[in-house]
Amino acid sequence: MGQIITFGEVLMRISPKSNKKFIQSNSVEFYFGGTELNVAISIANFGGDVKHISAVSEDFIGETAISYIRKFGVDTTSITLSERPLGVYFLEVGAVMRPSAISYNRSHSAFSQIVPDKINWEEALVNGSWMHWTGITPALSQGAFDTLKAGLKLARQKGMTVSADPTYRSGLWKYGQDPKEALIELLDYSTIFIGGINEINEVLGTEFGYSNDDFLKASKQLMQTFPSIEKVFDKIRTSLNSSWHKIRARMWNGKEFRETQDLDITHIVDRIGTGDAFAAGLIYGLQQFDDYKALEFASAACALKHTYEGDVNLTTVKEVTNILGGNTTGRFVR
Amino acid sequence: MGQIITFGEVLMRISPKSNKKFIQSNSVEFYFGGTELNVAISIANFGGDVKHISAVSEDFIGETAISYIRKFGVDTTSITLSERPLGVYFLEVGAVMRPSAISYNRSHSAFSQIVPDKINWEEALVNGSWMHWTGITPALSQGAFDTLKAGLKLARQKGMTVSADPTYRSGLWKYGQDPKEALIELLDYSTIFIGGINEINEVLGTEFGYSNDDFLKASKQLMQTFPSIEKVFDKIRTSLNSSWHKIRARMWNGKEFRETQDLDITHIVDRIGTGDAFAAGLIYGLQQFDDYKALEFASAACALKHTYEGDVNLTTVKEVTNILGGNTTGRFVR
Amino acid sequence: MGQIITFGEVLMRISPKSNKKFIQSNSVEFYFGGTELNVAISIANFGGDVKHISAVSEDFIGETAISYIRKFGVDTTSITLSERPLGVYFLEVGAVMRPSAISYNRSHSAFSQIVPDKINWEEALVNGSWMHWTGITPALSQGAFDTLKAGLKLARQKGMTVSADPTYRSGLWKYGQDPKEALIELLDYSTIFIGGINEINEVLGTEFGYSNDDFLKASKQLMQTFPSIEKVFDKIRTSLNSSWHKIRARMWNGKEFRETQDLDITHIVDRIGTGDAFAAGLIYGLQQFDDYKALEFASAACALKHTYEGDVNLTTVKEVTNILGGNTTGRFVR
Amino acid sequence: MGQIITFGEVLMRISPKSNKKFIQSNSVEFYFGGTELNVAISIANFGGDVKHISAVSEDFIGETAISYIRKFGVDTTSITLSERPLGVYFLEVGAVMRPSAISYNRSHSAFSQIVPDKINWEEALVNGSWMHWTGITPALSQGAFDTLKAGLKLARQKGMTVSADPTYRSGLWKYGQDPKEALIELLDYSTIFIGGINEINEVLGTEFGYSNDDFLKASKQLMQTFPSIEKVFDKIRTSLNSSWHKIRARMWNGKEFRETQDLDITHIVDRIGTGDAFAAGLIYGLQQFDDYKALEFASAACALKHTYEGDVNLTTVKEVTNILGGNTTGRFVR
Amino acid sequence: MGQIITFGEVLMRISPKSNKKFIQSNSVEFYFGGTELNVAISIANFGGDVKHISAVSEDFIGETAISYIRKFGVDTTSITLSERPLGVYFLEVGAVMRPSAISYNRSHSAFSQIVPDKINWEEALVNGSWMHWTGITPALSQGAFDTLKAGLKLARQKGMTVSADPTYRSGLWKYGQDPKEALIELLDYSTIFIGGINEINEVLGTEFGYSNDDFLKASKQLMQTFPSIEKVFDKIRTSLNSSWHKIRARMWNGKEFRETQDLDITHIVDRIGTGDAFAAGLIYGLQQFDDYKALEFASAACALKHTYEGDVNLTTVKEVTNILGGNTTGRFVR
Amino acid sequence: MGQIITFGEVLMRISPKSNKKFIQSNSVEFYFGGTELNVAISIANFGGDVKHISAVSEDFIGETAISYIRKFGVDTTSITLSERPLGVYFLEVGAVMRPSAISYNRSHSAFSQIVPDKINWEEALVNGSWMHWTGITPALSQGAFDTLKAGLKLARQKGMTVSADPTYRSGLWKYGQDPKEALIELLDYSTIFIGGINEINEVLGTEFGYSNDDFLKASKQLMQTFPSIEKVFDKIRTSLNSSWHKIRARMWNGKEFRETQDLDITHIVDRIGTGDAFAAGLIYGLQQFDDYKALEFASAACALKHTYEGDVNLTTVKEVTNILGGNTTGRFVR
Repeated sequence: MGQIITFGEVLMRISPKSNKKFIQSNSVEFYFGGTELNVAISIANFGGDVKHISAVSEDFIGETAISYIRKFGVDTTSITLSERPLGVYFLEVGAVMRPSAISYNRSHSAFSQIVPDKINWEEALVNGSWMHWTGITPALSQGAFDTLKAGLKLARQKGMTVSADPTYRSGLWKYGQDPKEALIELLDYSTIFIGGINEINEVLGTEFGYSNDDFLKASKQLMQTFPSIEKVFDKIRTSLNSSWHKIRARMWNGKEFRETQDLDITHIVDRIGTGDAFAAGLIYGLQQFDDYKALEFASAACALKHTYEGDVNLTTVKEVTNILGGNTTGRFVR
Repeated sequence: MGQIITFGEVLMRISPKSNKKFIQSNSVEFYFGGTELNVAISIANFGGDVKHISAVSEDFIGETAISYIRKFGVDTTSITLSERPLGVYFLEVGAVMRPSAISYNRSHSAFSQIVPDKINWEEALVNGSWMHWTGITPALSQGAFDTLKAGLKLARQKGMTVSADPTYRSGLWKYGQDPKEALIELLDYSTIFIGGINEINEVLGTEFGYSNDDFLKASKQLMQTFPSIEKVFDKIRTSLNSSWHKIRARMWNGKEFRETQDLDITHIVDRIGTGDAFAAGLIYGLQQFDDYKALEFASAACALKHTYEGDVNLTTVKEVTNILGGNTTGRFVR
Repeated sequence: MGQIITFGEVLMRISPKSNKKFIQSNSVEFYFGGTELNVAISIANFGGDVKHISAVSEDFIGETAISYIRKFGVDTTSITLSERPLGVYFLEVGAVMRPSAISYNRSHSAFSQIVPDKINWEEALVNGSWMHWTGITPALSQGAFDTLKAGLKLARQKGMTVSADPTYRSGLWKYGQDPKEALIELLDYSTIFIGGINEINEVLGTEFGYSNDDFLKASKQLMQTFPSIEKVFDKIRTSLNSSWHKIRARMWNGKEFRETQDLDITHIVDRIGTGDAFAAGLIYGLQQFDDYKALEFASAACALKHTYEGDVNLTTVKEVTNILGGNTTGRFVR
Repeated sequence: MGQIITFGEVLMRISPKSNKKFIQSNSVEFYFGGTELNVAISIANFGGDVKHISAVSEDFIGETAISYIRKFGVDTTSITLSERPLGVYFLEVGAVMRPSAISYNRSHSAFSQIVPDKINWEEALVNGSWMHWTGITPALSQGAFDTLKAGLKLARQKGMTVSADPTYRSGLWKYGQDPKEALIELLDYSTIFIGGINEINEVLGTEFGYSNDDFLKASKQLMQTFPSIEKVFDKIRTSLNSSWHKIRARMWNGKEFRETQDLDITHIVDRIGTGDAFAAGLIYGLQQFDDYKALEFASAACALKHTYEGDVNLTTVKEVTNILGGNTTGRFVR
Repeated sequence: MGQIITFGEVLMRISPKSNKKFIQSNSVEFYFGGTELNVAISIANFGGDVKHISAVSEDFIGETAISYIRKFGVDTTSITLSERPLGVYFLEVGAVMRPSAISYNRSHSAFSQIVPDKINWEEALVNGSWMHWTGITPALSQGAFDTLKAGLKLARQKGMTVSADPTYRSGLWKYGQDPKEALIELLDYSTIFIGGINEINEVLGTEFGYSNDDFLKASKQLMQTFPSIEKVFDKIRTSLNSSWHKIRARMWNGKEFRETQDLDITHIVDRIGTGDAFAAGLIYGLQQFDDYKALEFASAACALKHTYEGDVNLTTVKEVTNILGGNTTGRFVR
Repeated sequence: MGQIITFGEVLMRISPKSNKKFIQSNSVEFYFGGTELNVAISIANFGGDVKHISAVSEDFIGETAISYIRKFGVDTTSITLSERPLGVYFLEVGAVMRPSAISYNRSHSAFSQIVPDKINWEEALVNGSWMHWTGITPALSQGAFDTLKAGLKLARQKGMTVSADPTYRSGLWKYGQDPKEALIELLDYSTIFIGGINEINEVLGTEFGYSNDDFLKASKQLMQTFPSIEKVFDKIRTSLNSSWHKIRARMWNGKEFRETQDLDITHIVDRIGTGDAFAAGLIYGLQQFDDYKALEFASAACALKHTYEGDVNLTTVKEVTNILGGNTTGRFVR
């Protein structure tokens, strides 16, 4: 099994402790994250061989970011340095009916200024067997979109598996590109689709509902439109409020539709990066297990992410399989 | 719309982090609060023009208190300085079946020594259109009672709206005044009553129960006894334990009885000042909306306060109306 | 009423704040604990006269441990000093379906090297009326087992009550002694049995189930096998996940079987030492109340421990009886 | 005495605790600063009436910045909101021979995008009697330069005093403007020059040395070139290392040359914003005292700033005059 | 050697971390102190048998204070509980030329309301061989003065040594008593005088200077006026600034005048309680060593206190004698 | 240039914040260190290719240790896992005349149980060009000594440079081996000697003094006794107290004696690991510069380490050369 490749922005997250707001704090905590990086680190925590490709600032913040990624054993040798600053986001963590709030400072960041010339994809993918992309990177800038496209093209030429998490976030996409067209172009290089009804409707221009029936129909239409796509995985979140969610997942792999049990997350610690934890669980799981076991693994990994502070999932294979074995009562591990 | 006036003690709250007790800590956090100040700051956070009148210590603690109030945009120009120290309270935050514990050091504080001469009410109320008082201030000392009375008298002469939250706390009232008589005297200056069965029974000497029926009867009798009172608003709390409450509210405005839906606060962050958040929501809401919408606004504001650390409600109109619009699932605000 | 005696290891617990893992922290908190010490401190917090006997390191960590114990008013005059380090354990606190994880560094600690000669039991028990032991101490080393046995023997000679909490932890017991035989030997000195089906099955070699019926049968058979045992107390935990448990307790005192109501611990703060809190509640309660009231007291004390950070129960008699009086809604104590 | 006006960027400073680096921290502290804001807040702490004009982000970070400024009593009513993020800088505080390190993220910030239309200078200066500018603002962007120029022009038309601190920082000035020409243009509106040999050489194209003699010659030539300039104030820093500096100051007011005694800052707490503290001391001092006393006041204020964490000088007139009175031994103030 | 007795107020000290001011903090640290308590705890840390007598609040703050004192092994059995709150003081720690600032909230505290009836002196002094008093206690209230006097009278009747540290702090003494007369009355019960020229001048009404010559004359006159006084010990502090002091000490014991070397405290950590550390060093030293060695011991103990955070001296006999042995270069202790 | 190899224990350091003692803290910070690891990380921070070989615990503490080392880019692929716990040390940081205190818990740690079979040296040294050892590792256990010897033997066979820092710490060496004999055996494999008079006297059994003359004589005798040793480097520390040291260095390389200037470290932040920083500076420097420049580089690196918290030197080549260029006044790096 070769190296798993992710490509995307590294962001510094800065947030007050517990549920405080900035206006009442003078001390804050920081983490690094970014949707594709979160996937990379989570896979590394499962024991996978992962490389994250990015551009960070050439200063002590960029160095700290690289050291943070390296700490988890992710290969950082294809990260380039830039004169521009690292992107930052500020987070105020909500509770109960108060939503969390995020403010970004990323529009002129080191990564957003990337252009295809900055990455030597031949070298970067030399050991690659799988590449994962999300809808965030192409939304950042023309250069980010072009660079990603160049990477995906080569990945497919090399016969790598390509997983897509084409999350559509309307607050981004400010540089002129049409989101739908861009995502379609990238999906043509993809073999695994991680996303739900909203993403399918976005790229197909359809109006499917959220039922399992509609999910099945939507998946089939998606696979007709994009013949390279072999499997569709979806995660369903039910939110009582900011502090209490339920998670389950479903799939269509061209042969069978399956759905997991609900996992009840009664006391959320940190909700950021839970979708990335699902994707990481799938990417790792699909290389170890059959499709349904991978779905269960991903769903449990996603649930566990809600219990870790920070953007990345610190969970291990042992913890996830413990839950899959039915042990969700949280007995001590001594 | 003119300035809203509050008058009352500023207290410094000192508490260990999270659920720790003092006996196991060496590091604590501090906030400023006080029931009327909490109302003032919450209204300022809604965008209202508010002045808080008080007396604080003439030292770096008093300066810090003033700067804390000013930070939220509350007018502090009528706060006087005193040689006596600022009142302090110590808080240990409970959890589940453990109640929070409070210990006060306020009996000889800067505010408790206030006398009517210290406040130039003519000047202080010059832009005032609304004045709010609570049952805490008259309970502190003869001087505080007299000073409040002087202010309310002038407020009514100027035709200002006067809202009363005549909370009766038996641990106070140590200076000789009979609570019932004092509250009756002050209610004669009031036009809006914020309080429930307990407060009504206290001032009327009645024994109404907690049913809606009794609330209606009690409100009517209250409005007969105090003809200046036009509306009665009540908030009902159901507590599973220290960490999990439900909130709903009801009203009688002389024409209609209305009641809001329950709001389920499954993971309380900080319970202090939630009644003040309700009063602030009402005072702001009654100036913006019809009575029932104001009640809903106040109820949602009160629920949101449970998610903010500290005594004051940091919520905004946007956050409250978001809940009123039915969004209580805590989706991110980016 | 004389002094209550406990004997066991003092451990330093080191854990990241809130639910963080070590890999994402650079700041941690420390507490001292140890199953018998937890019992001692909890009884002292109830107002009992308690002595804890142990061996700690002769350095600033050992001094800090002693000062920590002394802070709660526990008699530390029979604690001896050793050249070996204090035992340490590292804790990562889980949440929801993530279990807490513990790593011990205790196998060559000051306490594990104890031998009977180090403790002058005559002197140590001079005011003793009750001695409590658990299954942890005999599991640590031959010296710990022998020293405990010497103490228990003398305690029985002096007619002291002896309570046993023969928790069997398979990860210990590495020094060659057969756990079952060792526990049987110690139970012969015991008059009160605090433990459930698992512990009874372990020492009797039986296979009773968890029903009340089986508990009754098991208790009777236990009391036949160990005629010194007069009463059996058991605590039943139902875990939804790491953050939400229910607790109830049951007893057989040779005359009546009784069972308490469930206590619902919806937001666990710290789960460590909750069994010790139950034992402490019983030991204190049995000296103050009848058996059933003691059981209720212990059950409520155990539930309250879940709301305190650290290994020891900081609760007071007032807090426990407040719950027994039906007040579990967490109203403020001012 | 009218209002003192400052105009410039508000930056959020984020730094690890004590002398830590980011690579070894996960918790950091934040402050707000910016050279002109530092001057404003320091003057407010002296009791002056000050308005700071700026543009901040329209999010919770911008709100926090405004509340931070308001906390010190600075008038924030001319601060505008922008869709762009607030500028941020990261700081690692050095010690002894290790220099502090700074990394900026400000080039596309809310303030850098300002244009003259965004500020209604007529309204902003309505109560103004003094305006202060520095060489940082014109270095940021064409819009910042133009907006500042518009303000200074009006200030001079209104007969306001204009103080200039034309610090030249070569790392800025990236938008095309020639620094020397820009500073000359702005100095033509200025009446007080706060700066030393380096700044004079920069704008005159001269090569004066650091001696008092050269300072005098340089000042005279400066005042010939810019006839509006009436006084020149300079601060001289002697650095043993990052932790130990000496400060003294000198002046030429067209009539006399004066120099203060050295102040020995043996244990620097925070070196940021000390030049701004000097400027603030001068601006306040020149309105209260004669020129030399103002110089002494500014020099002592600057020295005191080294003892306060954060960018702004928290010192008071009482503290400064205490030092001027010869009390530098740090006796308690009770 | 019997028990050493101290009597005085327990204060809670609350201060921001490092050199921060309250206005820039939301997190603070707390310690307990009080001049006589500081002496008591320091002696306990030397291994002495000490009892501290006081009155604290009957709440969780009072409990925390008692547990804090007990932690150091000081006998707390004569501390009484009061309905009034514990005294508090707020501290902002200065640096270099910035003085530390203190604000007290103690005038109606638990201790200030003490009256002779509250303390059973017969019982309290049962094992006492030495009693220490300071000028703070008689300055607080008539009750405190009377209670102290009652204790000293009995102490002398029992033949105990009585040491006096009659520090005169003018900000206290507000209850009507003339300080000089009060101190004279108490000195009549004293055998050891710890204090310098200022204190001697205060009680004798003289105007001696600070030279050794004057110290000698002053001491002799003091011992003539108060025949019970056998020895006079003085500590001289030279302050470069808030962060850098020198300490030396001198004595007259009726036979010889001696003076110690300067100890250079180049980086002060905490200056509070350093005089109390000197007194504690003397009281312990005079019971172990000859007078001059006791003076040296006290002087070194005082110097060491400057390196410990909090009010109390955490130093040990080993650390002090290490310095006396000439090792002031701070080599590691492993 | 090949890989630099270090071999030694990884210790977890746990210490209270700033100058606090454990007895007054409940929150502590942790770092990882160990003399050889400190050398490794410092070289990695200079940009060198380094591998650290060790054995750590197979738990979350061991994982955290590995991630900590990996974070700095040190190769961790030859670190083995063990069932035994990671070694821990507790540190209380002194100040001025108070020495820092250390307490170890390492005698049965994962590393101390190492035996030669655990390390495949052929594989571990495959890219090695330099190996560094210290006197700590052979002092820990027979297994550690044997394993080190096996590695050094192979290193010399492969023609690698071997640097020795034979620090002799008498508190270790408890397993029976004679220190002198063991060090002699290891020095026979060494080519660079990093150490001073004490170490030379220890292994030669001589009594040289500290003068430059004696250093020269001692070095010559050392090189005669151990012909493999080509160069001797020594670091001289002059301590005013715990907070203020001076550092200079000297060398004899068989051809010339050279000595550096004193570096004055007026405000020490952290003194741990400063000798390791010197060794790392030398190892890096000798591969980049001539011998004297390497000595200067090492001396400046050592001085800079005193400004970084934790055991490892976070300094960079740029920072060190900045000082060598004469810039020790700590001007900002922007």
